[in-house]
Parts: sequence; C-alpha cells; structure tokens
Amino acid sequence: MKRIGIIGATGYSGIELIRILLQHPEIYIQSLYSSSAEGRSLAEFFPHLQSADLPMLQGIQPEKIAQENDVVFLATPAGVSAEITPVLIKGGVKIIDLSGDLRLRSPEAYQEWYKKLPATKEVLQQAVYGLPEWNKSKVREASVVANPGCYPTATLLSLLPLLQTEWIKPDSIIVDAKSGVSGAGRGASLGVHYSELNDSFHAYKVGQHQHTPEIEQGILQMTKKEIAIQFTPHLVPMTRGILTTSYIQIDKSQDVGFTVEGLQKLYEHAYQNAPFVRVRPFGSYPRTKEVLGTNYCDIALHFDERTGRIIILSVIDNMVKGAAGQAIQNMNLLFGFEETLGLPKHALYP
Amino acid sequence: MKRIGIIGATGYSGIELIRILLQHPEIYIQSLYSSSAEGRSLAEFFPHLQSADLPMLQGIQPEKIAQENDVVFLATPAGVSAEITPVLIKGGVKIIDLSGDLRLRSPEAYQEWYKKLPATKEVLQQAVYGLPEWNKSKVREASVVANPGCYPTATLLSLLPLLQTEWIKPDSIIVDAKSGVSGAGRGASLGVHYSELNDSFHAYKVGQHQHTPEIEQGILQMTKKEIAIQFTPHLVPMTRGILTTSYIQIDKSQDVGFTVEGLQKLYEHAYQNAPFVRVRPFGSYPRTKEVLGTNYCDIALHFDERTGRIIILSVIDNMVKGAAGQAIQNMNLLFGFEETLGLPKHALYP
Amino acid sequence: MKRIGIIGATGYSGIELIRILLQHPEIYIQSLYSSSAEGRSLAEFFPHLQSADLPMLQGIQPEKIAQENDVVFLATPAGVSAEITPVLIKGGVKIIDLSGDLRLRSPEAYQEWYKKLPATKEVLQQAVYGLPEWNKSKVREASVVANPGCYPTATLLSLLPLLQTEWIKPDSIIVDAKSGVSGAGRGASLGVHYSELNDSFHAYKVGQHQHTPEIEQGILQMTKKEIAIQFTPHLVPMTRGILTTSYIQIDKSQDVGFTVEGLQKLYEHAYQNAPFVRVRPFGSYPRTKEVLGTNYCDIALHFDERTGRIIILSVIDNMVKGAAGQAIQNMNLLFGFEETLGLPKHALYP
Amino acid sequence: MKRIGIIGATGYSGIELIRILLQHPEIYIQSLYSSSAEGRSLAEFFPHLQSADLPMLQGIQPEKIAQENDVVFLATPAGVSAEITPVLIKGGVKIIDLSGDLRLRSPEAYQEWYKKLPATKEVLQQAVYGLPEWNKSKVREASVVANPGCYPTATLLSLLPLLQTEWIKPDSIIVDAKSGVSGAGRGASLGVHYSELNDSFHAYKVGQHQHTPEIEQGILQMTKKEIAIQFTPHLVPMTRGILTTSYIQIDKSQDVGFTVEGLQKLYEHAYQNAPFVRVRPFGSYPRTKEVLGTNYCDIALHFDERTGRIIILSVIDNMVKGAAGQAIQNMNLLFGFEETLGLPKHALYP
Repeated sequence: MKRIGIIGATGYSGIELIRILLQHPEIYIQSLYSSSAEGRSLAEFFPHLQSADLPMLQGIQPEKIAQENDVVFLATPAGVSAEITPVLIKGGVKIIDLSGDLRLRSPEAYQEWYKKLPATKEVLQQAVYGLPEWNKSKVREASVVANPGCYPTATLLSLLPLLQTEWIKPDSIIVDAKSGVSGAGRGASLGVHYSELNDSFHAYKVGQHQHTPEIEQGILQMTKKEIAIQFTPHLVPMTRGILTTSYIQIDKSQDVGFTVEGLQKLYEHAYQNAPFVRVRPFGSYPRTKEVLGTNYCDIALHFDERTGRIIILSVIDNMVKGAAGQAIQNMNLLFGFEETLGLPKHALYP
Repeated sequence: MKRIGIIGATGYSGIELIRILLQHPEIYIQSLYSSSAEGRSLAEFFPHLQSADLPMLQGIQPEKIAQENDVVFLATPAGVSAEITPVLIKGGVKIIDLSGDLRLRSPEAYQEWYKKLPATKEVLQQAVYGLPEWNKSKVREASVVANPGCYPTATLLSLLPLLQTEWIKPDSIIVDAKSGVSGAGRGASLGVHYSELNDSFHAYKVGQHQHTPEIEQGILQMTKKEIAIQFTPHLVPMTRGILTTSYIQIDKSQDVGFTVEGLQKLYEHAYQNAPFVRVRPFGSYPRTKEVLGTNYCDIALHFDERTGRIIILSVIDNMVKGAAGQAIQNMNLLFGFEETLGLPKHALYP
Repeated sequence: MKRIGIIGATGYSGIELIRILLQHPEIYIQSLYSSSAEGRSLAEFFPHLQSADLPMLQGIQPEKIAQENDVVFLATPAGVSAEITPVLIKGGVKIIDLSGDLRLRSPEAYQEWYKKLPATKEVLQQAVYGLPEWNKSKVREASVVANPGCYPTATLLSLLPLLQTEWIKPDSIIVDAKSGVSGAGRGASLGVHYSELNDSFHAYKVGQHQHTPEIEQGILQMTKKEIAIQFTPHLVPMTRGILTTSYIQIDKSQDVGFTVEGLQKLYEHAYQNAPFVRVRPFGSYPRTKEVLGTNYCDIALHFDERTGRIIILSVIDNMVKGAAGQAIQNMNLLFGFEETLGLPKHALYP
Repeated sequence: MKRIGIIGATGYSGIELIRILLQHPEIYIQSLYSSSAEGRSLAEFFPHLQSADLPMLQGIQPEKIAQENDVVFLATPAGVSAEITPVLIKGGVKIIDLSGDLRLRSPEAYQEWYKKLPATKEVLQQAVYGLPEWNKSKVREASVVANPGCYPTATLLSLLPLLQTEWIKPDSIIVDAKSGVSGAGRGASLGVHYSELNDSFHAYKVGQHQHTPEIEQGILQMTKKEIAIQFTPHLVPMTRGILTTSYIQIDKSQDVGFTVEGLQKLYEHAYQNAPFVRVRPFGSYPRTKEVLGTNYCDIALHFDERTGRIIILSVIDNMVKGAAGQAIQNMNLLFGFEETLGLPKHALYP
C-alpha cells in the first residue's frame, strides 16, 4: 500500500482526487495539506465527506511532506508548485502536479502566458508530461509528472493521430472548446456567479488562453511538428465537461491518400491499447454527459466533403480525465499498477 | 456469483442498476429484457455503455426469465409487474420490483391512486417492503421485494424515528418534497421538455401523488400509527436529487419530555447501524448534490422555538437510494452479502 | 416628467429598476448613484446597457440627491437606508426603499433579525408598507415607501384573503418558499458559486429568515391578527422566480361555512381590482416561468379533503413584483399615475 | 391599425410573436390559427396568456386568412408555407414566413437540405429575404418576406461587412455556432428531454444543417461572392440564445491593408444606421444573456496576431432577432412604420 499526500485538498481537484482514491485498492490517503485550513477537517468544508475516514488538514511543510508520502499530488493554484517542487524533489517523494506550473518546458513561455514566476529549468527538465496515451514509457520512469491541462487533454487526444499523417494542412487547425464551470475552481468571483452564468453562454480569452502553448508543445513533442493552433475556450452553463470541436483542412494540393475509412481506422488503431479513449462510430455526436464522472475521452470523427475538412469532436469530464483521474492514471503508471486501477468507468447518466 | 436479470433495461432505473451492478463483485449481469428493443444492444440507446460488456436485449418471456436468473429486477412502468410477477414467482426466481405495483398491500388503494389493475392479493402478500433500515430481517427472508418509491424513501427515513415517540401531534405532519426531473423517466413528453422546465419551478399533484398512501402505509407498518400525511411534490430544474422538508408540531399540551438534544440523539441512535443514513449535525442544510450518485440519505434536524415545530430536511439521489441503489441494497440482504457491497458512497462533487 | 434617482444602481435591483423605467412614459432617469463606482458608466459593468442613454454614476451625497430628484429608489444593502434616509426626508424627496431597512416598525425586531443598527423611530413611523393590493390609499399619500421583500410579497398576497376569514386555524400556517438565486444579489461568494448551486437544491435559514417578522407584521397590519408563521426558504437552481407553497388547516371544530367554491370566489373577489394579481383556476399549478419578467403574482388554490388543509401556490418574479416592479407600481401610486403604467405584463416564455 | 394574423400560434415562435405584438402601438392581433387547436383558447396551452385579450384559435383556411388580415405571420413547421402560400398571395395578404420554406431560391437546394417538397419557383421568386440590415429597400416593397433563420441571422450579421473586403481568404471561413434549446420548438421528443440535455453539451448535424445553404446564399446575394461555409451547430443547456464564433483567415499573400482599427471601423460604419446591431468594443466577450428578450445582435471583433485570424463573436436571442422580433422588424418596414417600433430593447438581466 502506497502512502498518498494531497496538497491543496480543499479545492475541487483536491476533493476529486479524494473521491477516486477512496476507491483505489493499492493506496491509502496518508495526509492532506492546505495552506488556509491547517488543523481543520475536510468535512467542515464538504459535509458529504463526513463519512470518509480522512486525515486532518495540515499546513504545507515541504520537507515533512516529502518524508510522509510515497507520492504527492499538487492540486494548487498557479505559482505554488514552481515554489515548493525543488524541496519535494530533494526529499525523494514522487510528484504529480495538477497545476500548470511544470507543463511548459520553456520558463519564458510560462511567464508570458501565466504572468507568474516560472519553475527553474532544472525542475522543468525533470518533469514528464503525463499524457499516458502518448507518453506512457516516460511516465513509468518519471519522478515528477506534469499532469496535462483539461483543454490540452481533450485537444491532444483528438488531434495527435491525425497530426502524424501527411493528410492535412498544419496551419489550418482550429480548436473551438467549450467547458463547464468547475474548471474555474472553487474561489468565489463574479466570473463564477450563478446569476451571471446560468442560462447564458460566452467565449473568453480568445487567442490568449494559457493552454494554447501547452497544446502546441504537446504536438511538437509527440509529432515533431511545429504548428500554431487557433484555440478558443467558451463557458457552458453546466458544472462538468469539456467538448472540443476541431477543424482541420485536408491537403487537396496533392494525392495524400485520405479516405474516411482510413481516418476512422487511424484513430481506432492509435487507441486500440488505450483503455480510456473510446473512438466512437464515424459521424457520432458524443455528449459530455456520457463521460460524466469517468476517466474516458470519447472521440468522434466527421468529414465534410463540401469543404474538405475533417471535424473532430471529443469529450471529457474536466475534473476526471482533465485533472484528477488522469493524475491517478499517471500514478498507476509510476507505481507499476495496472493503468486502469481504481479509475471510474461508468458515467452517471442521466 | 449470482446471475442477475433486469426487465426494463432501457429506462433510467434500468441503466442505473447496470451502472452500479457493473461494480458489484459478487454478481454478474446475466440478461437484459425490454419489451420494445428485443434483439438490440443497449449501446444503441446509451453510447456511453459501449465499453461495458453487456448481453443483448431480449424480449420479456417470464418463464424463461425465471429460469435464467437468480434474481430479477423489474424496472418497468406501473402495471407490468402486476401482470408478470405471478409467473416469475412460480418459476422460483427472486424478485425486486422497482415499480409501484407491489408496494401497497391493498389492491383497492392501488387502483384508486394508480388508476391501473392491481396485482393479486396473493402476490401482494408475498411482497416485502424493501426499506432496509426498518425492515431488514424481513427483506433477508423475502423472495419478493417491493422496492420503495423515491419520495417515500426520503420521507420515511426522515420521519420514522420521530413517529415512534410521543412528542408530536400526529395530524400535523406536512411533507413538502422537491425532486429533480429524472424521476419522471425517459419517455418524451411536454412535461419533461427542456424549454418548459429549465429555469422554472412548479408544484404538481397536490394532495394526489400516488406515493402518499405508500408513506402512510410505511408509517403504519413501522410504528403502528395510522396517520394522514400532507404530501406535496415539486419539480426542480435539476436532473437528480430529492429534498424533503417536513414539518411536525410538538405536542405542547402535556409534558412529553422533548429536547433538541434528545431529538438529535434519537436519530443518531436510530441510524447508528444504518450504513446509508447519515444524521448530519443539528441545524445543518444538506444539499442534494452532497449525495449525488450515492446510496446515502442525509438527514438534518431543526427546531423552531417560536412555533414549536420540528423541521426535518432529508436528501437522497432519487436514482440511487430512491431506486436502483436501494434495490441493490435489498439484493445484498436477500443473498446474505454485506449490506453495502458494491454500492456507491462517494458523491460526485461538484 | 418626473425626475428619478436610483441609489445602488450597480446591483441587480438597480438595473432591474432601470430596465423597467426605460419603458415608462412619464418619468426619466435623472441620476444614478453608487458608493463604489463614482464617475463610471453603468455600461462598464453591464455592457448590454451601452445602448441605453443613462447618466454617469455619482457618489452618494444625500443632500444633493434630495435636490436633484422627485423620487429616489434605494436599491442598497441592509443598513444604508437606515443611515441616509433622514437627510433625504429632510430634503423633501420622495423615497422608495427596496432594502429591508424601513419595513419593520419595531427597531428592536429589525436589530434582532437583521443584526444591524435600525433606522430611527421617526423614520420608521413615516414609512408606508408598499404592498399596493392591500395598502393602496396609504401609499398614494406617502412620502416614504418601504417596498416589501420578495418572499413577503408572494406570501402575503397568497395568504391575506384567507386570513380575513374565520375558516382556519391561525397557528397552523406553514409557508414553504423556493427562490431563484438572483435574490441573493450580485456580490460574489461561495453561496452563489455556480458549481456549488447548479443541479442542486437546499434549504437555508430555517426558522430564521428576516422576512418572517415582515410577513407577520403584514398580516397583523392587514387583518389585525397576530399569527406566528412557519417560514422556510429554499434555493432553486434558477436565476429568477419565487414559488410559495402555503399550508393552512381548516378549523373543523365548528361550522365555519368553508367550501372550495367559496374559497375560489374569496380570492377572485379580493383581487378583482388588482391588475397584477391573477387568481388562476382552482387546482392549477402556476410555474415561475409564467411570470418571468412581469409584475404579476399568480395564485392557485387547492384543497385536500383527506387532511382538511388548504394549499395555496403563488409565483412571482422576485426581481419584478418581488422588488423593482413593485417599487415602480408604488411610484405610480405616489405620483397619481395609472397603477400599471410602464410595468411589464408579458412573460418571456419559454 | 393594421390587422395581424398568426398561423401556428401555439408554437414557441407563435407566442413570441404575440408577446411582442401585444406591445406594438400600430397593430392589433386580429386572428390566430392552428391546425391542431381549432376552437380553443391559447390560454389553455399557455396559462400566462390568460390576461391577454386574444382571439380564439381558428383552423387554417387560406382564403379566409387572406381576407381577414393585412399581414399574416407563418410560424409553422417546414412544409406548411410551401403549401398554403400560393393561396395567401392570391388573396392579397402580405406574408412574413418564419419557416425555412421560402428562404432558399433554389427548389432543388430546399429539397436536398430539408427533405421536403419545395415551394414553386413563382412563390420563391416573390419572396424577399428579410434581413433588414442588408436588404431593407427590398423588404419595404415586398409582399412576401422570407424571415431568416436564427443561425443565418447571427452568422450573416457578423460576417457580411468583412466579406465585402479583400482582406480575407474566402475558403477559410468556419462558423462554430451554439444555440439554446428553444430553437428546437415545443414538440416533445427525446432530443429535447430535460434529463438528456441538462448539464450536458453536444454538437449535431456537422456539415449537414439546413441553415448552411441559407448562409451561403445570403453571402452570395449581399456580396456577390460564392463561398462555402463550414457550419457546425451545438446545443447549449439553456433555453434561449445563440452565440456564433467565426474564424476567418487574413490573406497574408498580398498587402491587403488590414489593420485591427480598420476592422473595428468597418463594422461600426456598416451598422451605424442599424438600430438592432451593436458593435461592441474591440476584444469584448458578449454573452447571450445580454440580449435576452431583445431584438439586438451584439458583435465583437478579435484578431489573433499569432495565427493571422479574425475571430468574430455574435450573440442574439434566437426567439427574437432569430425569429419573431426580426419578423416584426420586417413588418415595420413593410408597413412603413419606424423600424424599431414596438420591439424589445432591454435585456432581462440577470
């Protein structure tokens, strides 16, 4: 039984980690940390956790954390991991960081998009990008995992197989993404005020979302192609779920051998050993509700003959495959457990 | 490993049974039945089930059903169980009926409130009311379980301890109940039309809901008191969840020994061995979201000194403790498994 | 053309006043005041107001406010009106206060329920309770109107006709109320966080809501009866709307002459000259959506013969009849305009 | 006072026409028609209309309809207008058709995309496309108006100014559209079932929506350019509102003189005399809620320097500017009234 610690246990990613880990047969939750709620019980904030047997919240002392746990999850706001990871690494504990701090290999890019001080180059070099479907062997040997963002997870899983081909025009890629509100976290602000969001829809951060360079870096790492992505996030009046609609132009300037059957097979083959990616029948319309509470990413392929464009739909639960679930999938790989161990597979429907 | 059959597998209660049973270690889903979808796959209706290994849908042939399974769940509309239960009983299969057909012991009352032909007296006499917290020993020995309705579950669990005392005026009881829309099932109608319900709230069936006699019968059975309940259901613009607000007048005409401490202790004691009832701290405000996806019923007690009334709040997930989860809790008792085996305990929050 | 000022223009009640007043033919919006946004334009906060021709926001200087306007609406948090009303009164401007500060005639009761310093007795004595359907003649002559709370409006309109009869047991009255989230205002807090409220339901302030004494005082004022009301508010995952479900026991101890026909006629008669109260057919189920955006209060009567209880359903839009619309209805009376002038009557449906 | 008739009065577009027309000073609602509810009152279906003074529903007799009214609105499902319009035209009544039947000038295209029998060439030639901001002079003289679809309205208003320039690559245009559920009408089906849609998001009809040829025809008509549009609709868990996110690649192959200031000015100039189009400040994020209940289309421009793409956001209320409101705007032009007469301008916010 491995000892697990969670830093930032009072946030939404923190309690989602707990929800899933309480079902995991090979670990136990050793310790919970919070900078703001030291000495208190998590059930004070989340009464539904009163029946779970959980440790009290402790303050964040990195040396102590490194000693007490075999792996520590950081479910913290931007900037925290950059600061405390060096001590944790030194202490020898494995790290799975759910924040964006360790994802971008370039400190300059981090600073530009996140407007915060970046982690050091040394830390960033140790961090392995934890997208298991595309980076499994490295994750297995990692001691620091940068858990992908919610949008990059849904986007990369839906684009990468296609980007390995020569079928398409790389500069044509547009990702129009839609997310539930839980991705914004538990902090109170006008931006997550019920009366402002309910029964309404809007876009935000057009051309400026910090997940854009993460997507581009992921593409570069996995396909060796340097591609600028057009990425637009929108806020949907729902709690959980992300749907991405991606548009990619076929390269009709030469005979690239594209067929819709080939497209479907490409994806089925790419993910035949990926237990959490479900390639849906060609022309399907996945709904975010169909992956609610699960670690699945469902992908459906479309082709518009009139325009010569491939349209790809993908859905995830942003709190699971887009955060806590994927982090535990990475933990399973780190510890040599079966990849699917303890992870939710059955959507809450309806 | 017990063999499980589900009749009415394409409805919401059917797929909720499947969601939970797929996690249960001591059974397997042997067969699925549907009167309208014979020969088809459940994944045609619910694509999220494509990754579950499930049998094809069969037509409903009661003799065959009795042979193929150790227990059969009926997740069927009113009227079906009344018709096919006799053959199933004869065939020797255990029966857990999620419909209202076998709950009322009086065929006349059934006909009055349900406006359908009732089951026979013989069948009704065999049926045990499956509210485990109050009827566990009988359920253990039953071959036919009438699984309680969603509203009666939330109501009875919140009222019964108090109704065993002499603290209150029995004719004062008012239960104001609020439910999510999933309780209405999957059939399309104007009554469940999104644009009609979203961002709106209304009452329905004031004084006429068919769960009223079930609640009164449950009280009579468990407390030997014949009490008329005022019951009003409302429809909340949400998918899952029931909250009941119950009002009970203290009997101030004599010294009944009532104290708020005594009230809280009464409930804590009544449910100390009930793994799925959580008595929350006195004066709490449980939210339906806090039991989402779980088999819990959370209860909170309030007392208004100004008016001398006890107010009791209870929440359940109507699809779990109010239907499929409780049915599986009953199944566990029938088969001698641990009561909590395979049942969801961790709410999807937020 | 009357000159209108609004204090607290950046809140939800403030912009709802503006939405309606922009359609009013006999007034113009002279000035907007805000303690936090002096010198700014309202369109900075509410871009949809960019096309309305509105004055800039000014700071709150009571003397100046009194000079500039014929009437001033106070759409301010608890505590503000108590403080500035004396100066406004002195300045001779008419006052319509949407906050709770001037509603309770007893300063002690205010302090007990609001936990704030009350207005002076002098101010409170001048304030007329602005429920036009029951206090029209006084409102017409008032210079200070205490605009009723949202819950009291829906509750009093649905109870008062009945409470004038001898049909009922006065100590039996229970009001189970449900409100949309906009009633909580625009301030950001965990209590109005989208992810905490969406797809969930809960009660709050059981036996402790500050609208309780306002309801009881309204009953006393209009019927001369001192009655303790059981009042419970709940939060519905919707933006606007209040529904109250009220339970009243018929007095069966003597022949009180109650009939359901008499009940329906009582209400139709009571409101025959009330342009904003619609008594729906007996046994109806009004929906909050059916009054969305309008100044109507719709009331439906039910009677349960089994229990001898009258159940009354009423719905309002909490922002209109529950706040800004009723305030303008009062303004119309103050200025001798037609009561319905400029007020919205056509619900946005669906 | 003009006499107005509405065919299809029991649908959502029908009652939205009524909501707005009841406020219009220069017309009165002469007659309401319904194929399914002859002889009944609209208040039977929509109790909130009980206080409106409306005629009873009549059956659909085209000759009689032509005699009784000055203009008739057809708020009918696809296929009805194609059938009855010839008789209405012959009878001399002006026609405003809210269905898709008269929008496509090519009967073959109609048949291909709508899978229904088209109207005759003669009828189609008389029909003027009722997008007032771009076709006002023709609408003024029309006797038959084809009222635009909801998606085409939001899309064309946001694209047309730009498509008149030489700044862009015409084959790059992608319109990712999101709509509330009311656009699907009032008919009950699994597709609009609350429990299936609430708290979930999905795309539909990728590359196949019947509004695609309407958008392309509108572009051809207004700019003389034949452009294939990539159009993808999605369903948002909300009742009203459409947001479109359009992506257009700047033509960097030559010096086209594009600047962001020029872009913003282009739109401000294009719509300086359009009372219902609001060009928001550059880089804004309009929300569907900000036009709720109004006839506005709000447009915001963005430019992503990294990718060289213009991104345009536009929002409308699909029931108003996307249906009934625009139809009444067209009626105003037909009758020579002021364009804005009687049309709602103040959003219900929040």
